[in-house]
Amino acid sequence: MLEPLKSKIVPGLKENIDAIELVVGYPAVPLTVDCVIFGFDENSLKVLLIKSDLAQFYGKLSLLGDKVNANEDLDTAANRVLLERTGMKQVYLEQVHTFSQPNRHPGGRVVTSVYASLLNIQDHSLEITDNELNWHPIHLLKEMAFDHKEILDCCYAWLQKRIQEHPLALNLLPEKFSLRQLQHVYEAILDTKLDRRNFRKKFASMGLLIDTHEMELNVTHRPGKLYSFDHAQYQLRKKNGVGIDF
Amino acid sequence: MLEPLKSKIVPGLKENIDAIELVVGYPAVPLTVDCVIFGFDENSLKVLLIKSDLAQFYGKLSLLGDKVNANEDLDTAANRVLLERTGMKQVYLEQVHTFSQPNRHPGGRVVTSVYASLLNIQDHSLEITDNELNWHPIHLLKEMAFDHKEILDCCYAWLQKRIQEHPLALNLLPEKFSLRQLQHVYEAILDTKLDRRNFRKKFASMGLLIDTHEMELNVTHRPGKLYSFDHAQYQLRKKNGVGIDF
Repeated sequence: MLEPLKSKIVPGLKENIDAIELVVGYPAVPLTVDCVIFGFDENSLKVLLIKSDLAQFYGKLSLLGDKVNANEDLDTAANRVLLERTGMKQVYLEQVHTFSQPNRHPGGRVVTSVYASLLNIQDHSLEITDNELNWHPIHLLKEMAFDHKEILDCCYAWLQKRIQEHPLALNLLPEKFSLRQLQHVYEAILDTKLDRRNFRKKFASMGLLIDTHEMELNVTHRPGKLYSFDHAQYQLRKKNGVGIDF
Repeated sequence: MLEPLKSKIVPGLKENIDAIELVVGYPAVPLTVDCVIFGFDENSLKVLLIKSDLAQFYGKLSLLGDKVNANEDLDTAANRVLLERTGMKQVYLEQVHTFSQPNRHPGGRVVTSVYASLLNIQDHSLEITDNELNWHPIHLLKEMAFDHKEILDCCYAWLQKRIQEHPLALNLLPEKFSLRQLQHVYEAILDTKLDRRNFRKKFASMGLLIDTHEMELNVTHRPGKLYSFDHAQYQLRKKNGVGIDF
């Protein structure tokens, strides 16, 4: 039984015969990655989706996914799939969860690792639009192909938690922004109205906003002060970082 | 090419021929799960490890892992592996990350989904001790088998973040505990000295500790007040939950 395996052995490492024998006995599973790209635009949260290729899911929306190639790690696969499906490069993707329910794919067992990102739709044009690639308001989505609605719900919960723990949502704003704009971002993603006074108090207490001494221009409401985010202070605090809060 | 596939088709669902064809074209990868079980004992953080079976890693410590069976989801596999390796049941495991570096296993490509937990060592006896299963102080660990040191470091960073966002560490304490005990848990896991006054102020401001009006007994230091954790208030707040802090 070992004969056909010997060719795989690294020279000088006879010891890995037992490692190879072990791995040969593991069931092998087709692996995919799926990307959940959240986008913020005109005060609403959207997600980037395609129409499914499969007859069984005709007309249904699907996440951006594909197989993982041989010798490709999951991070590389997720970035490649996003590039191939949308033309987008240099999007920061985070691995959220791996989904493995045995019947989740009608073609047989497929395990998928899911990556997510949050970006400003204005900053990213869609260079490829195959399979009707487009942004969809998150609150209008109902049934989707495969278990993709369940995956989307999981990633949306992850995002809502993440923006409360991490200044991710600040990336959606221009460099100088008003507290009104900041609150709109949080309200859109958390899908709730926030108390204006508490929201401002919370951000003031964190000490991470710099007063630019400039005011909003050309707005229909009373112009607000403009702030910028103190990245240096945030990095410093993160390094020293104990911030218990639950 | 479709002939051998037809037997797999669900009756009445001719449409899934294309799904099956698709999945057949995906590279299949051996999958494993690994469990990182953190334990707290005598004011120090430990992790449950075995000695590796493989000649190549002779004498090296390894996480508790095994293959994922056919038709087994990852959660089930992680719980099974923990039961088989330790005899432990009803341990709450959380999926942390899936590791996929192509050369991480000397036996060929293996992708592993990693689960973690934090428990009180006193509450869990080890019923099985094959492969020298034992608790190891986390700060004494250097080289380990496979990429397990890197995986452990990733899970330790996850744990340090998690106990600051979630009352996970409260499960390590008796129902009534002193603020000194609480601080010791946080200091052990965060591996840092915390300022006593700030720590107490932080927990007081969260409003989640109930004064039991009892005092510590039989302690060598000045007896402290005993508190319990307000689980009901925590659940309520979580439900209504906006708690931006970073």
